[in-house]
Amino acid sequence: MSEGLTYAGAGVDLEAARTAKSRIAELVEGTRTEAVVSAFGSFGGRFLATPGRELVASADGVGTKLKIAFLSDRHDTVGADLVNHCVNDILAEGGKPLIFMDYIACGVLEPDTVAAVVRGLSRACRTNRCALLGGETSEMPDFYAAGEYDLAGFIVGEVAFPALTRHELESGDRLIGLASNGLHTNGYSFVRKLVFDRMGLSVDDPFPGSDASVADILLRTHRSYLPALQPGLEAGRVRALAHITGGGIPGNLSRVLGTDFDAVVRSGAWKRPHEFAVIAEVSGASEEELFRTFNMGVGMMAITREKDVETTLDEIRGSGCEAVLCGEIVRGAGKVRLESA
Amino acid sequence: MSEGLTYAGAGVDLEAARTAKSRIAELVEGTRTEAVVSAFGSFGGRFLATPGRELVASADGVGTKLKIAFLSDRHDTVGADLVNHCVNDILAEGGKPLIFMDYIACGVLEPDTVAAVVRGLSRACRTNRCALLGGETSEMPDFYAAGEYDLAGFIVGEVAFPALTRHELESGDRLIGLASNGLHTNGYSFVRKLVFDRMGLSVDDPFPGSDASVADILLRTHRSYLPALQPGLEAGRVRALAHITGGGIPGNLSRVLGTDFDAVVRSGAWKRPHEFAVIAEVSGASEEELFRTFNMGVGMMAITREKDVETTLDEIRGSGCEAVLCGEIVRGAGKVRLESA
Repeated sequence: MSEGLTYAGAGVDLEAARTAKSRIAELVEGTRTEAVVSAFGSFGGRFLATPGRELVASADGVGTKLKIAFLSDRHDTVGADLVNHCVNDILAEGGKPLIFMDYIACGVLEPDTVAAVVRGLSRACRTNRCALLGGETSEMPDFYAAGEYDLAGFIVGEVAFPALTRHELESGDRLIGLASNGLHTNGYSFVRKLVFDRMGLSVDDPFPGSDASVADILLRTHRSYLPALQPGLEAGRVRALAHITGGGIPGNLSRVLGTDFDAVVRSGAWKRPHEFAVIAEVSGASEEELFRTFNMGVGMMAITREKDVETTLDEIRGSGCEAVLCGEIVRGAGKVRLESA
Repeated sequence: MSEGLTYAGAGVDLEAARTAKSRIAELVEGTRTEAVVSAFGSFGGRFLATPGRELVASADGVGTKLKIAFLSDRHDTVGADLVNHCVNDILAEGGKPLIFMDYIACGVLEPDTVAAVVRGLSRACRTNRCALLGGETSEMPDFYAAGEYDLAGFIVGEVAFPALTRHELESGDRLIGLASNGLHTNGYSFVRKLVFDRMGLSVDDPFPGSDASVADILLRTHRSYLPALQPGLEAGRVRALAHITGGGIPGNLSRVLGTDFDAVVRSGAWKRPHEFAVIAEVSGASEEELFRTFNMGVGMMAITREKDVETTLDEIRGSGCEAVLCGEIVRGAGKVRLESA
């Protein structure tokens, strides 16, 4: 019936959905772990938790970093950003990943783009030994601009390091800053305004003072701190963790202090990465604003006893992640005190 | 520094975010169950699984039904749509809800809107005895139009009815159709085109042949089938479930048939709800297209042994949900055969 309204006429392409689904199935299969019980395509993914253990879950999005992926037509890294972000969040609660699920929403489903996104997800899931258990790919005409999409993720882990979150800090405990890999997934509304509007750059231009392009710098992948921190967590040397995301060091480190301690952070203890120096100089933003918006070079903050700090630093560095002693815990009222000296 | 670029200048309102957060905290607290271990505001939500039990997880979005919420400025029902959709998905895998997490993404965070969305989530979580463990509210300038947002959710349950999913069907097993409450969350791209573009209606106009408005009809909440089906599942009378979402009865019932059986569905066994009759008449779409796009009045299909069908029908009806015997399982090859006679 030629005048019949069809789903294709309403802007939803079921054939493209089928193509994308079969490619996703393959990528998902590559992340299967012994915890997974169900087959791909079930109504829900079944998995085993370690009996008697607590679980921990977290939800997150990639945020406006996605705009950099759209502008540069590179879609195979944002999935890893999301998985690693989620892994770090549950790590800060003592969790080791079990399963991950994604939500991809787009205006028009482009199988190549969706497959690239899922490639990034599955790569990071394999690295973190986490099963990509399932997800939802949603075609929503009139919601997203052509070529654009949103991406969110959900993770469940087992609480493998329960001692971590007891918040039993002591005066004199040490702060270790673990190096970030660029901006991770925070501050992108700010940096897009700065780089594209104020500086007039495009994603293919060289980033100021660098051989790398703007896209190269701004798409660097949010790092997973699981491999760097696992030994220290298993040995009980790492007492608390703060994942440095929105709100920066002050906004996140304060979440683990409780009400009786302050954290003194010496921001001069680490070399400010080039991209943050450029952002600081061109924006004219205050140090306070910068540290609340960006990770400023530290993507995770670990707290150890004074006696354990050297061993922990060695372990983290041995895993290939730069780390620096950058402050300590003192009596106080739950505040983070940034000292530039 | 007046020329300093600030986050507020980049379109992100941290004060609005704080307001929304405190209101969300209150709503979340109301959904707390004995499974929840962590406090609001942790990096990840900790919860207990029943020891030794399998878990089941699912991710979903509301889809373009959200556009109806935007047009009518009613935001307190779509959260319940999402939770109930997720509850039904894991129910079809034998799961009882433990925890739910949400992802809300918007261009500009409007605390009233976000609070209304979370009100819908928390209401449905309480009804389904599921903890709203946490979530992510993401402000993404340049992504979403003013007043618009996307909403996705993630559920984890324990597999409480493991016998359900063994797919041990027999020739002569009966199909029970459980009544939907309107369109649930599928077919909205189609119906928006039909109602707004072709019929020229607005959300406040009366739906044709009805006293209710277009918004009233199109925002009716996706129903949770947990209360209706729990007795039959606990007694082992319900053998398999198909949640009727995207793909309709043919696309979803086929998922539980395996390779040796067909399902014969008599679509004349139930009275087609008024809204679907209007959609059929005005669109001129074929029956096949209609049944692949909409639930057509059946939101969940349950399979029982012949001897259990009357008891199961009575139980479902006793819970307040209409249900009808509408077909049977026969030898075949995994196909759904719709018969209109």
